[in-house]
Amino acid sequence: MSTKSDHIPRATIERLSVYLQVLENMQRQGIEVISSGPLAKACDVNASQIRKDLTYFGEFGVRGVGYNVRELIQSISRSLGIDHQWNCVLIGVGNLGKALLSHREFGRRGFNIVGAFDCDPFKIGEEFNGLEVVCTRRLKERVADLNVRIGFLTTPPERAQRAANHLVEAGIKGILNYAPARIFVPAEVHVEYVDFFHHLYSLAFNISVDKT
Amino acid sequence: MSTKSDHIPRATIERLSVYLQVLENMQRQGIEVISSGPLAKACDVNASQIRKDLTYFGEFGVRGVGYNVRELIQSISRSLGIDHQWNCVLIGVGNLGKALLSHREFGRRGFNIVGAFDCDPFKIGEEFNGLEVVCTRRLKERVADLNVRIGFLTTPPERAQRAANHLVEAGIKGILNYAPARIFVPAEVHVEYVDFFHHLYSLAFNISVDKT
Repeated sequence: MSTKSDHIPRATIERLSVYLQVLENMQRQGIEVISSGPLAKACDVNASQIRKDLTYFGEFGVRGVGYNVRELIQSISRSLGIDHQWNCVLIGVGNLGKALLSHREFGRRGFNIVGAFDCDPFKIGEEFNGLEVVCTRRLKERVADLNVRIGFLTTPPERAQRAANHLVEAGIKGILNYAPARIFVPAEVHVEYVDFFHHLYSLAFNISVDKT
Repeated sequence: MSTKSDHIPRATIERLSVYLQVLENMQRQGIEVISSGPLAKACDVNASQIRKDLTYFGEFGVRGVGYNVRELIQSISRSLGIDHQWNCVLIGVGNLGKALLSHREFGRRGFNIVGAFDCDPFKIGEEFNGLEVVCTRRLKERVADLNVRIGFLTTPPERAQRAANHLVEAGIKGILNYAPARIFVPAEVHVEYVDFFHHLYSLAFNISVDKT
């Protein structure tokens, strides 16, 4: 990874995943080259923004021609650290956990869920997508064996902190938290919140404001 | 709704849903009064930020005593427009769609999914959580009948724009888009993206940078 990537602003990182999504859709449609104008339009940002963001990753574009879609996907993927496989575990096998275990898109994008954990004896031994639910007590051993670095947390809110503690103790480096609860972890562990309600509240608020 | 709410910055709205989540957890634990220091700590923001954010919603706190948890929840809920029920529909009944239909938390928080739609004849007529999957052609009629304002979009990416068009045409005011694709809608329709990969990419990026 280039040292340049270390200082990419968070807002740029967020936009990069949008660019990647749009570029992958273009690739599926057979588009090979795209200039910054149409790319910006498809990403719903302005063209100068996209050009600025992409300079963090070196010079991809050819003036007057545009960006090679495949190369740009590869370069962004490499810069984000997603050009290789990531082993992940999931803790909390409720409805949402089961859905994520069945969501083939994670594996397709290199995020392999290689372990599913729950402390409910009625769930242990159940199988989803070829993966057997294992007792949370065995988390640490599995994380070490399988070189797992990311944990999906899908417990109910009241069990989120305990699950987070288990993940941290097992040596996980990043937690994707789907539980509607704040969790506290050491500074060296990264947390991302997937909060459905935060988005619903924004919609409700914006729709309510429109009516006034 | 007070006219004051119209100009609340987006960043504040985002934090309000965190405050609400934390306050609800406190209420479950039987906490009745909280001062801004511990509230800020539990929300992982600084105390001056939380005090500033809450001034948009009037004066809740009593100096030297703190905030009444129940009243603060009610006031934030009212300000966000979530102190009443919202009828929602879901379009795209795949694994994720099914999981969301079974996720009781939406209804508990006043977001009632009252219709599930898909264009796949093998899915039409299936029932999830007491809700029968209906052909997308009937979306408009149901949205009008049931006063639906929010649509959950859970189709594969290549069908997202078509589904969004259906929702717009049916008179939906806000779309919660779980599909990994940008969608384009008229300016008066609000869109929120729930993008799992964006969060995973951030984790991958941050973990990768740590190692360099």
